[in-house]
Amino acid sequence: MRRFLSLIVVSLVLLAACDSEPSSMPTVDTGATGATAVTGALPSDAAAIATERGLSPDDIYAALKTYTPSGKTDPYIMISSGGQSGQVLVIGVPSMRILKVIGVFTPEPWQGYGFGGSGDKVLAGGKVNDKDVLWGDTHHPSISETDGSYDGQFAFINDKANARLAVIDLRDFSTKQIIKNPNAINDHGGAFVTPNTEYVIEGPQYASPIGWRYAPLDQYKDKYRGLISFWAFDRTRGRVDVAKSFQIELPPYWQDLCDAGKKVSDGWVFCNSFNTELATGGVEAGNPPYEAGTTKNDTDYLHIINWKKADAVFKAGKVEQINGIAVIRMQTAIDEGLLYFTPEPKSPHGADVTPGGEFVVVGGKLDPHVTIYSVSKMLAAIEAGGLQKDTYGVPVIPLDKAMEAQVELGLGPLHTVYDDRGYAYTSLFLDSAVARWTLGGPYADKHPEKAWTLVQKLPVQYNIGHIAAVEGDTATPGGQFVVALNKWSIDRFANVGPLLPQNFQLVDIAKGGEQMKVLYDMPIGMAEPHYAQIIKADRLKPYEVYPEVGWDAEQMKVDPNAITKADQAKVVREGNQVEVWMTVVRSHFVPEQVKVKQGDHVIWHLTNIERTRDATHGFALSGYNINLSLEPGKTETIEFDAVLPGTFTYYCTEFCSALHLEMLGYFLVEP
Amino acid sequence: MRRFLSLIVVSLVLLAACDSEPSSMPTVDTGATGATAVTGALPSDAAAIATERGLSPDDIYAALKTYTPSGKTDPYIMISSGGQSGQVLVIGVPSMRILKVIGVFTPEPWQGYGFGGSGDKVLAGGKVNDKDVLWGDTHHPSISETDGSYDGQFAFINDKANARLAVIDLRDFSTKQIIKNPNAINDHGGAFVTPNTEYVIEGPQYASPIGWRYAPLDQYKDKYRGLISFWAFDRTRGRVDVAKSFQIELPPYWQDLCDAGKKVSDGWVFCNSFNTELATGGVEAGNPPYEAGTTKNDTDYLHIINWKKADAVFKAGKVEQINGIAVIRMQTAIDEGLLYFTPEPKSPHGADVTPGGEFVVVGGKLDPHVTIYSVSKMLAAIEAGGLQKDTYGVPVIPLDKAMEAQVELGLGPLHTVYDDRGYAYTSLFLDSAVARWTLGGPYADKHPEKAWTLVQKLPVQYNIGHIAAVEGDTATPGGQFVVALNKWSIDRFANVGPLLPQNFQLVDIAKGGEQMKVLYDMPIGMAEPHYAQIIKADRLKPYEVYPEVGWDAEQMKVDPNAITKADQAKVVREGNQVEVWMTVVRSHFVPEQVKVKQGDHVIWHLTNIERTRDATHGFALSGYNINLSLEPGKTETIEFDAVLPGTFTYYCTEFCSALHLEMLGYFLVEP
Repeated sequence: MRRFLSLIVVSLVLLAACDSEPSSMPTVDTGATGATAVTGALPSDAAAIATERGLSPDDIYAALKTYTPSGKTDPYIMISSGGQSGQVLVIGVPSMRILKVIGVFTPEPWQGYGFGGSGDKVLAGGKVNDKDVLWGDTHHPSISETDGSYDGQFAFINDKANARLAVIDLRDFSTKQIIKNPNAINDHGGAFVTPNTEYVIEGPQYASPIGWRYAPLDQYKDKYRGLISFWAFDRTRGRVDVAKSFQIELPPYWQDLCDAGKKVSDGWVFCNSFNTELATGGVEAGNPPYEAGTTKNDTDYLHIINWKKADAVFKAGKVEQINGIAVIRMQTAIDEGLLYFTPEPKSPHGADVTPGGEFVVVGGKLDPHVTIYSVSKMLAAIEAGGLQKDTYGVPVIPLDKAMEAQVELGLGPLHTVYDDRGYAYTSLFLDSAVARWTLGGPYADKHPEKAWTLVQKLPVQYNIGHIAAVEGDTATPGGQFVVALNKWSIDRFANVGPLLPQNFQLVDIAKGGEQMKVLYDMPIGMAEPHYAQIIKADRLKPYEVYPEVGWDAEQMKVDPNAITKADQAKVVREGNQVEVWMTVVRSHFVPEQVKVKQGDHVIWHLTNIERTRDATHGFALSGYNINLSLEPGKTETIEFDAVLPGTFTYYCTEFCSALHLEMLGYFLVEP
Repeated sequence: MRRFLSLIVVSLVLLAACDSEPSSMPTVDTGATGATAVTGALPSDAAAIATERGLSPDDIYAALKTYTPSGKTDPYIMISSGGQSGQVLVIGVPSMRILKVIGVFTPEPWQGYGFGGSGDKVLAGGKVNDKDVLWGDTHHPSISETDGSYDGQFAFINDKANARLAVIDLRDFSTKQIIKNPNAINDHGGAFVTPNTEYVIEGPQYASPIGWRYAPLDQYKDKYRGLISFWAFDRTRGRVDVAKSFQIELPPYWQDLCDAGKKVSDGWVFCNSFNTELATGGVEAGNPPYEAGTTKNDTDYLHIINWKKADAVFKAGKVEQINGIAVIRMQTAIDEGLLYFTPEPKSPHGADVTPGGEFVVVGGKLDPHVTIYSVSKMLAAIEAGGLQKDTYGVPVIPLDKAMEAQVELGLGPLHTVYDDRGYAYTSLFLDSAVARWTLGGPYADKHPEKAWTLVQKLPVQYNIGHIAAVEGDTATPGGQFVVALNKWSIDRFANVGPLLPQNFQLVDIAKGGEQMKVLYDMPIGMAEPHYAQIIKADRLKPYEVYPEVGWDAEQMKVDPNAITKADQAKVVREGNQVEVWMTVVRSHFVPEQVKVKQGDHVIWHLTNIERTRDATHGFALSGYNINLSLEPGKTETIEFDAVLPGTFTYYCTEFCSALHLEMLGYFLVEP
């Protein structure tokens, strides 16, 4: 490689020296794929370092395409699932730097989330049968939408492990609400929003009796059920309103990923499913294992649900209240014409609506094709009626009345995203590749190639799961970049032990006619993320500091217990309750001594009275499992019993000034 | 900027066209600092992208110096404090990519740390008075050393908030032990190892009565004490051995950062301190706040401790057992000649021993100088005797008998690290700069400049705290890179709300005679890290997979409960106890159905029987707050009461194959 780069340098000089025409750039065939013409110049030390580090022309291109100099900001922001970490990752694109890990289902002390402050209230919403579940398996983030495009206001994400949904406010990138689905114990197909975020959709996964009540597996067919939830979102309050939400009972097929229709298909939602075999496993008893039992059939069912009609049925009261939420029973859904099926080839995964809403693309994990369903054909078939029914009585549209096309892509097609030039990008898990292929219909004249045709397969490292593109699942895709969310990294990074990071690979798709290129490998050494969405940064309008001093970030309004000046600080005892009002500012707390008696109940209000951006203080109370993050203007309240006697300290956990170490107080608990 | 780059391109061609001497490289004065000579070549698309993105020659240099192509690994690994996250971050250098977040004091579900498996045992070691404290304020990581150089076997880190110490095994980069200091409630000056890792040193911070028992603050002088701990480390077991560890009682000055002597100063440890004023705050009562009260004196005391002599005193039994650990009382320490002081200028912070052990460099936060102490001078002064004593009877070496030099660097000097060419690098918090200056003594002939002289100040963004260099705090510094651990990032990154990331800046120090350069801004959006150490990657020898199937990663040996083949899987009931032996392999669990009765006590052993690298499986049990990570070969055991009746699922949380979604089982709890 060194020899190769030296050759470029020498060749350039030789060629240039013989060239009397300054306007014509010298070119050198380097023999490498792509990036062969030499027309620019490297600073001498940069050329030396490229040689020393063995960087190829493609590497140099990738470095310059992704490197973001100090002080310049990323034009795109990726909101990524944090997988089993239970969190959400916020990543700058194209630099692929983690800007924030948002505490969602798992307590996160840096943000003071779940260590005594208002985050405790949010996490408490996620209890299962009144017991803490302090992690989550976050899968699919969904940014709130207006008219099918991201509006940058909120993000939602599901917890597959416990069937929960979280709401993140993008004004401060923090979690405001967690709700436990009272009728399901796991989910997968969530969160997905309808085009104006009327509802947040949470599909199920492994069936169970509704309310995950007990029933033996030999009663699977009759007692077990699937369930899809439509959580009504109140934008003003920034909360899901359970009273305005509803669910639809489904057959016990394992409904998987969903996508809401938009534009021409607004009002519909499409979910794939597997295990129409109704397999219940039991390899230990000589049965086929699930992996065999659930993949016997050649087809499963794409679920086609008319959510606008379901909304009307719900509002008309044709529901049953189960565990505090309205459920449209399966028979009602069938009778009211809300629910239809159409066959999907082997082990479907991923159901992705095209930008204009015309088609639904489904990847069959064990089929080399993606199958493209036409929404207009399906609606026509529903309109025409006379459909056969499945075991549970759901009308089934024959595949040939629903399908627009199939495109052979390779092994293990999973998920599909779109760009602004009529291309689709599908992840191929088994091939470890990203397939770029052409859309037809109204997209056919956007690209030069034949419609419904594979145009390139880009190898990725390795075993790609989801795929994300700039606004690539909206009505207005951006183009530019795709991110391959690879599951295995194997040999990509320095060895840090048997638990390996995943590998997000940034892929350049900017040039329509040219080949895609891998630009950057980003290790994810904290989670196995699933889906991610990439939003244009200028759609986000986060706070720089909270709007007013005394801000309650959980309620997003001023806390009546906040004080705004140091001379309002006080400690008041009433019986065995001690209430503290404290100010926090560089570089001291007021008060600096808090004295209580063992067993006292302590209520402690803290307000950061600063207005300077980044002037965040922390508050750690030693020995008491308490840590808060107090951004400028923020008020938090902690409440606890002073059960441990002795001498404790509280101190600022953010290095806020040269005298930060001196920002402390003593908390004395007299025995 | 576009105009500027176009100029380079055009100029190159013009100059080259007029140059008949191929061996002479054309040069262009770009008018920018550094990186001005043009001698190399950019691929045409790279040149276009540099122009489009407005990259300067310095940016191009930095991009090529840090970009690490897919499949190439970082030559250096940074082990960084995770601050209030309670974790440790593992970062590749120079790519500045996070390779792993190690769960340490805070439960971390991706690693299955604290969610039912063996990590629960590790975390339980950190209880405070038998109560969970499930976060930490990690400060100073310390890689184990042999003869003063990193040996890559273990890492240690303290929790400032609760005075705890954690041991991380670098064979699998996971936490094996947490111990609670029974006599202190917070610490700061930890962890630091002695040159052969005989002891891990944990200094204290804010004084309290030993055992943090209650005493009113008006008894501060008599009842409150400082405390330094020497935790004996057993390399074979990979554990701190509390029975072989000891502490030394100190005056209630706030001992801060420590560093062990090495080479010529092996056997000594040096800790700075502040608050020799014995201030107790109370701004609310009209007292000076701590930030004023603790900074009144012109000097505090550098603590000079002979740990080898202390070790002998401990072994001779001249100790008192307090809360289960041997404590050398202050008077014993004085009488035995273990403890000396020397004055340190205003608000000292950072005490950093030079590579050969000759000097200790102390930064005075409120003094523009660093003060360099000569170990040989201090030892001579101790030898000479006749020293005056401080209030508590500790002998004090006069500053002029201890000091070698002072170097004026700028505002807010904190910490100092070293390279292999006789330079020291000191962080300047208030100046927001890295100062490079020259060492004297045996280092004077390694660099061309005058000894003890400032040679460059590099602005950083912003408010640098600690500073790390490649093996820069060892006997064998590496040179090449420095990382500025900046506390504020303000305008460096896209806005993601009021809680901003910190900013790690990678600095190029490779060329001795040239100027340092900022290469890369790395946001840390998950913590406010403190210190970090950077080790050459080839010193690390982590496992690729665990050595044998059935590996207990907490004990680092085969678990007797492990099974190695699917046909050994079984479920055994004895009374109301149900014990499960399960195998885990792509893509099924054996068994796939586990049936118990409500209230049963369940013991469940899981073994991943795979041997393929990266073939990790997860195990989530819905509703039960249980999640495990099962890397190839690993065995985990969970134990719980089946209190929630109903239908639950367990499934694999790592996307392990195309049929990963089908890797599940039902856990049925009959009411």
